[in-house]
Amino acid sequence: MAGGVGARVVVGRHIYGNLYGCDPQILRDESALITIIKEATKIANAMLLSVGSYRFGPNGGLTVFAIVAESHISIHTWPEYGFATVDVYTCGDHTDPKAAFDYIVSKLKPQKVEAFFGDRSMYKE
Amino acid sequence: MAGGVGARVVVGRHIYGNLYGCDPQILRDESALITIIKEATKIANAMLLSVGSYRFGPNGGLTVFAIVAESHISIHTWPEYGFATVDVYTCGDHTDPKAAFDYIVSKLKPQKVEAFFGDRSMYKE
Repeated sequence: MAGGVGARVVVGRHIYGNLYGCDPQILRDESALITIIKEATKIANAMLLSVGSYRFGPNGGLTVFAIVAESHISIHTWPEYGFATVDVYTCGDHTDPKAAFDYIVSKLKPQKVEAFFGDRSMYKE
Repeated sequence: MAGGVGARVVVGRHIYGNLYGCDPQILRDESALITIIKEATKIANAMLLSVGSYRFGPNGGLTVFAIVAESHISIHTWPEYGFATVDVYTCGDHTDPKAAFDYIVSKLKPQKVEAFFGDRSMYKE
């Protein structure tokens, strides 16, 4: 988890991905996605503050969102294409955003995953 | 705004940044940040569904979050370090996430900005 130089004042790690060929049934299942994001919060070792979900468009697409004390986790879905995007962004050495990301991916059952890492740390200058 | 090959089925653009040396007064001003994120939603040409804000820790740090029909916008702040992170992730050719990101940055008055682009599009395979 590289990036920057010097000591980190704030440790922030953001794992995000674009998921192709997911199970469309799960992508339109609001309560399943809420359960998944809550479980992911625990796996990340983050403290859940709030979960919200919103359905958009005529095809059952969903946004499911968790605000955690350590930042946020989101899932956006396009069931009509089997496509979803996932963000797990948590702060603090005590958190494990990669494990939470991998858990969400395992539940959405994609055929292909494009995963990326964003360093959201603050470095001492 | 590169990435992938072939036609885009879903257009998703995610601009995110780490902001150093921001005005600490603004970073702990919940109502100011809510006003800023609402205005950013308009500038992005996105449709606002919900705004939430959460204060965390003893130093007045805030998370301000906007769910839009086209994905999400977030601001996380650490006033004690003058540090903030900003994400503007919107879907659709009609949106302008870069303009919204630049607007938020202008309001937080950082001395240094690390900005990144994440392609969240789905490409035809």
